[in-house]
Amino acid sequence: VKGILYGIGVGPGDPELITLKALRILERAALVAYIVSPSGTSTARRIASPYLGRQQELPIVVPMSRDRRGALVAYDAAAREIAAQLEAGRDVAVLCEGDPLFYGSFIYLYERLGPQHGCEVVPGITAFTAAAARARLPLTRQDERLAVLTSRSTDEDILAALQSCDSVVIMKAGPARERILPLLKRADRYRDTVYLERVGWDEEQVWEDLDALPAGPGPYFSLFITARRRP
Amino acid sequence: VKGILYGIGVGPGDPELITLKALRILERAALVAYIVSPSGTSTARRIASPYLGRQQELPIVVPMSRDRRGALVAYDAAAREIAAQLEAGRDVAVLCEGDPLFYGSFIYLYERLGPQHGCEVVPGITAFTAAAARARLPLTRQDERLAVLTSRSTDEDILAALQSCDSVVIMKAGPARERILPLLKRADRYRDTVYLERVGWDEEQVWEDLDALPAGPGPYFSLFITARRRP
Repeated sequence: VKGILYGIGVGPGDPELITLKALRILERAALVAYIVSPSGTSTARRIASPYLGRQQELPIVVPMSRDRRGALVAYDAAAREIAAQLEAGRDVAVLCEGDPLFYGSFIYLYERLGPQHGCEVVPGITAFTAAAARARLPLTRQDERLAVLTSRSTDEDILAALQSCDSVVIMKAGPARERILPLLKRADRYRDTVYLERVGWDEEQVWEDLDALPAGPGPYFSLFITARRRP
Repeated sequence: VKGILYGIGVGPGDPELITLKALRILERAALVAYIVSPSGTSTARRIASPYLGRQQELPIVVPMSRDRRGALVAYDAAAREIAAQLEAGRDVAVLCEGDPLFYGSFIYLYERLGPQHGCEVVPGITAFTAAAARARLPLTRQDERLAVLTSRSTDEDILAALQSCDSVVIMKAGPARERILPLLKRADRYRDTVYLERVGWDEEQVWEDLDALPAGPGPYFSLFITARRRP
């Protein structure tokens, strides 16, 4: 019998925001894999660390450059290694920060392995719902519309979303936040917006008043949430 | 000491898709509240039922009509009742299917109670990430854009989202699915789309081929997910 590939969402940062299902699979898995940056950092492993120890671990080093070629080679190599484990009958649980299929690197492993192997995906809490919960900001009511995009979208796309949607989430926002702040003003959504860094981590920061944001870029794990304020 | 109002996301249907944090708060709460339809159905209570029994329960009957006036009166009355409990020093955990602030009725209680009372929101797994996991459909890669809207959006808004965004989620889709199917074709996204009903419930259904959908409307708890297919 072949092993099963599990994509396990571990949530955005707080280890308590993992689901019972993810935890059950994680604790039973023989082998746990996760992405590691070349400097040795693994956000997903850090989040799941209270639940690890007994399992064998397979770190997958992936270069984080905007040039994707190195990353694709790394995913190819990791997929071959995971495939060998699955063929040998071992289940492999891949840890994913947030949700595996929502801006998740699990997608690249799944594309390489999914068609040939049994696979199950366990959804995780996304950073944007955790951020809304942290800021107690209603995201969508009734028939409102939400747009999710990243800070690498063009100015035009960001403005169009801010103007046409009730709520807008801009992910991976820190590096571009100085570019985004004037767009929020131009779209007249500046007062509707909160900014959060590293939601659920010990280093979490929340700015409900964007005027208080220090100048300069912020970290990758950060986001703007724009939502209609009510009286 | 006053009690704390908790908004607890219990996830979309599978009781195992609740977080450890939600479960911890739920199990310790003296009083658990939830919305009930006039016919006596509570989706949130049904999802959380394995974890209930010891707590006192406060069902909040809310009319489900498109005319919102009856609902607003019901939320006013429920807020008064919950406020009395909080003033008496009892914590109140409000169960919410999916996530409390993402199309959640918790929003209407929070708007009435949040400013005057201590409140904590625990995010939940949203139906659309659970649906993507179930269908193993990558939602967003790299810098892709996602739009979330409901089936009550206009044809124009649905078409615009399908044409301008990489991924589109249409929530509460069943009642309008016969109107939506031609829009998917017109936007040339029909083959990119899956339809799911009651994700994670025992009655869950998944259609990866929309041609196989029976004619007529489907249930409220259903959605279309459109996403870019890769070779």
